[in-house]
Amino acid sequence: MIQYPNGVKKINQPKLKQQLKKLAINSYKNRGMDFEKEINLTNQFYVETKRAVITKRPTPINVVKVDYQRGAKITHAYFEKQSTTDYNGIYRGKYLDFEAKSTQSNTALAIANITIHQRLHLQRVIDQGGIAFLLISFSKRDEVYALKAIDFLKFIEQESRQSLPYAWIKSKGMRIAIEFQPRIDYLAAIDEWFF
Amino acid sequence: MIQYPNGVKKINQPKLKQQLKKLAINSYKNRGMDFEKEINLTNQFYVETKRAVITKRPTPINVVKVDYQRGAKITHAYFEKQSTTDYNGIYRGKYLDFEAKSTQSNTALAIANITIHQRLHLQRVIDQGGIAFLLISFSKRDEVYALKAIDFLKFIEQESRQSLPYAWIKSKGMRIAIEFQPRIDYLAAIDEWFF
Repeated sequence: MIQYPNGVKKINQPKLKQQLKKLAINSYKNRGMDFEKEINLTNQFYVETKRAVITKRPTPINVVKVDYQRGAKITHAYFEKQSTTDYNGIYRGKYLDFEAKSTQSNTALAIANITIHQRLHLQRVIDQGGIAFLLISFSKRDEVYALKAIDFLKFIEQESRQSLPYAWIKSKGMRIAIEFQPRIDYLAAIDEWFF
Repeated sequence: MIQYPNGVKKINQPKLKQQLKKLAINSYKNRGMDFEKEINLTNQFYVETKRAVITKRPTPINVVKVDYQRGAKITHAYFEKQSTTDYNGIYRGKYLDFEAKSTQSNTALAIANITIHQRLHLQRVIDQGGIAFLLISFSKRDEVYALKAIDFLKFIEQESRQSLPYAWIKSKGMRIAIEFQPRIDYLAAIDEWFF
């Protein structure tokens, strides 16, 4: 489906395509893409079964140049970081807000993955009485954990570490079963914690 | 701040710039931009004064081509329509969700402005017990109205009209004062309706 703008040569070599694909997969934007897809499938299931309405905020993009002569084609833009979390919505009448992170590490999640803006946003949601949490995937272990945002925020306030240890996440958080449908039933943790 | 990609001539003529600017203002994407800015300023005020946490979902963009050799520069993309509403968040512990529309007409708002997906989303939010509404600006009149989503959905179910008449919005909705700060205090309507 890729359309090439005028003047850009079309790449036909399968090998080069493969390399570019690999590059894309390893690049910043695509890290944890599978995890994102699994969450989106889960949310779709929740909406269809009327269990909750939780959606992903689109990736913010800084649009620099638009060609209005070609049907508002964006010709120059950059990905931006979310200043809030990636997901929010409503569950059992309550406002719910979370950030999802995937790591290839088996031992820890780097705290820098959750930006200062996102931490502030999570704190604000808590202050307003909302449900705030993190969803963390240790992709190599094939394990997913929900972690209350309040526990995360306390940790970074009290500890001087640069990362959340796997063992700590395992003890503080709640493991989410990975199943066929819903794929990652994180609302099970929310039921236990908040209702 | 506009950076031009290689091979694209920089436009220096002020007249041409003016024309492009006008074109951009009249184009689909920029319709109601001022209204959006005013709402964003209002939401910023609400967050800073700890009254609510309500944010705008970024405009979804369909990215076709990214140049990873140039720092993940997007070179080909298109604007997409939101499948949900533009704004959501938490207020007084409740989930809140709304769509904002601006019209230059003095007499009506075309119903087609709110897509089928958005109507479905509003209905789902209502079903989950959330607060759902529309914020409608009659820009030439300098008047803004909040309208409960339930009233909007009933109207399109019962009536065969293609637009919401101004007089009907005026009678069913609630006029929002436009002030210095917050710019468009729409939570005043929410207080009266839902609390």
